[in-house]
Amino acid sequence: MATDSLAVGQRSLGDPAVGYPLWPPLTEGCPRTSTASVSYPVEVDYAYERVPDGLFGSPEATTARHGLDRWAPLLPPLAAPGLGEGGTPLVGLGGGVLVKDESRNPTWSHKDRLNRCTVSAALACGAPGVVVASSGNHGASAAAYAARAGLRCVVLTSPQPPPAVVSFLHAYGAEVLPVPVEARRPLMRRVHEEYGLHPVSSLTPTHTGHPFGAEGYKTVAYEIFGEVGVPAAVFVPTGYGELLFGVAKGFAEIRRLGLASAVPRLFSCEPAAGGPLAAAVRRGLPAVTVPVGPTDAYSIACQVGGYRGVRAIGDSGGEALLVADTELDEARRELARAGLWTELSAAAGLAGLRQYGADRFDGPVVCVSTSSGFKDIAVGTLRVPPPAPDWPTVRRRLESAPGS
Amino acid sequence: MATDSLAVGQRSLGDPAVGYPLWPPLTEGCPRTSTASVSYPVEVDYAYERVPDGLFGSPEATTARHGLDRWAPLLPPLAAPGLGEGGTPLVGLGGGVLVKDESRNPTWSHKDRLNRCTVSAALACGAPGVVVASSGNHGASAAAYAARAGLRCVVLTSPQPPPAVVSFLHAYGAEVLPVPVEARRPLMRRVHEEYGLHPVSSLTPTHTGHPFGAEGYKTVAYEIFGEVGVPAAVFVPTGYGELLFGVAKGFAEIRRLGLASAVPRLFSCEPAAGGPLAAAVRRGLPAVTVPVGPTDAYSIACQVGGYRGVRAIGDSGGEALLVADTELDEARRELARAGLWTELSAAAGLAGLRQYGADRFDGPVVCVSTSSGFKDIAVGTLRVPPPAPDWPTVRRRLESAPGS
Repeated sequence: MATDSLAVGQRSLGDPAVGYPLWPPLTEGCPRTSTASVSYPVEVDYAYERVPDGLFGSPEATTARHGLDRWAPLLPPLAAPGLGEGGTPLVGLGGGVLVKDESRNPTWSHKDRLNRCTVSAALACGAPGVVVASSGNHGASAAAYAARAGLRCVVLTSPQPPPAVVSFLHAYGAEVLPVPVEARRPLMRRVHEEYGLHPVSSLTPTHTGHPFGAEGYKTVAYEIFGEVGVPAAVFVPTGYGELLFGVAKGFAEIRRLGLASAVPRLFSCEPAAGGPLAAAVRRGLPAVTVPVGPTDAYSIACQVGGYRGVRAIGDSGGEALLVADTELDEARRELARAGLWTELSAAAGLAGLRQYGADRFDGPVVCVSTSSGFKDIAVGTLRVPPPAPDWPTVRRRLESAPGS
Repeated sequence: MATDSLAVGQRSLGDPAVGYPLWPPLTEGCPRTSTASVSYPVEVDYAYERVPDGLFGSPEATTARHGLDRWAPLLPPLAAPGLGEGGTPLVGLGGGVLVKDESRNPTWSHKDRLNRCTVSAALACGAPGVVVASSGNHGASAAAYAARAGLRCVVLTSPQPPPAVVSFLHAYGAEVLPVPVEARRPLMRRVHEEYGLHPVSSLTPTHTGHPFGAEGYKTVAYEIFGEVGVPAAVFVPTGYGELLFGVAKGFAEIRRLGLASAVPRLFSCEPAAGGPLAAAVRRGLPAVTVPVGPTDAYSIACQVGGYRGVRAIGDSGGEALLVADTELDEARRELARAGLWTELSAAAGLAGLRQYGADRFDGPVVCVSTSSGFKDIAVGTLRVPPPAPDWPTVRRRLESAPGS
């Protein structure tokens, strides 16, 4: 697999004239353009002129139906073994609205696309393992890919992850350590430095993350394009903006390769309780830090923003939306009525679309749903009533139920 | 979709000379061959001579990559809207062992293949909804498909489903009623009769289930065949034997259509605490009832067996295995090390293979993993230690951890 990649180097998002070799991955962003207050990520550059003609055609072999491997030329080298990540379906809601259901991934979130790439980087660098700061999906996904690659994984998590997520984080044999939220980044840096563990989440004052991670998210765009062409818009649950950037870059590449003449407008959908990307866009800044109020959308409630999101919104002519928890809850109910149980954070894409109005688009609109309902904070806390022992009790309960 | 089906009728498993029209689905098995002690299911018969030539070739359009729709000619009419079920990956464990990861389905278990078919039947029959007796995956899956189809769903569940599963069962708006285990079947019959809700689980003394349900499971075989041809064996977590039968029938159809000259040997993998299928095979009976001892594999711990499993084992030259909870746990650990977190019951296929010995086969062996680890009984009950506030604490915990 590794030899198929057309990746040729890293390029600064702070200044596209600033380039670096592909190795080592610049896990603290661009050293030349970053300042004390803003860290600029780097992205991966490719030999686009050598992309095989048929790459975006129908997959010939069914073995290529799963795994990022199909897209290896436009990804960093996939040194770590895959788990059949990606290849998720679009599920229709009617009215031209399609849900990209990322809960069909190996650890039931979009993060698997990122971690196939970041754990591959760790393996290629010869690191003995990875370290990640995460309150859920990112940590468990990194743990799964690290386990499969035979690497150690340390997860620094929030003091109280949701009950079901605690089981999830421990499922793959990672070392899981709850740490205070404000200590997460410095402790992660220390683990990285002392044990040589490759960092697969961000170490910098504003978010940069792993330079290879967002590349994995490009495949969301490739898959959407393969099924419906270029949609009018894509609505994306947004925390640090890596998924948003990956989707934007994927469509930009499709246009660059001459396969399409336009890109979709990208809409970031952040919890209104925080919203660093919306604040940065509003203030015309590359990245800002904001206070975060109460919200149940823990997977995307971020204090710290990053420049990737600003670029995705700006380059695609999109907008930065803020959605309240009540809108998230309503969107989640709509998804459940359509047969999809999503994490509250995962419903942010649809919540953003419903706020903005689907009738403002001409053509299909895709809402990315990032994760399964099993990851939610309330999972495991519901109580069942005592059993109904006989038919009169069953009948009484059914006839008093809202659905009767 | 509905018009694509080549289904022509129902045929008794008790006597293949006994046929019935396709409608109505015989949800209580074959009335002519069943006795007071054994209920024989019916299966669906097709106009095999009219199967399109290219059906088992590579999918031409990427839109056919998800959903049972691709296989519509060999399924009962798919009247209910789909959720992109099926199309799950094979994940390699090394040594020619492949895991068919059914946790990638819409509700994260194989049951979605069944419920696409059973809810379609309910819709086609004009029923106002469905009723199902289930302790987890089957109930939630039926609820999802019913919600999508706009149908009511009543789930009669065990008195104490696992904590995370309670949330799962309620996620799609179904009416969820815990009932005593011994009262489940009579109460389900009563709900069916009084409200006209279509039964999508079994109503009979030995298991028959819905005649269209196991047809959905055939697609597991079709997909395996598309990726690796005919494997040497398939190991299947087994409760009532519907999945086992579906996989066996799918491969038998592939042979019947002249696409292969052999079928794989099928191995049922039941919890040793129960094992009605192993008992029936050992005693040469079509179906028996057994006591069930303690086991954490709640999804496949069945008192009641059914004739489908006996047929699948006999027709394929397979064997009926019993696996202890310790073997299930070891298999689950092996899967987690490979990056797959499965429900304990879902690890039964691999547990059976490890007991039987992978080196006894010449050619690839597939273990079906039916469901996600999120469905397990212990999910949500793990506690995290207090946060590690500083580097010395983090270091001490990491250096005392088994992975360090």
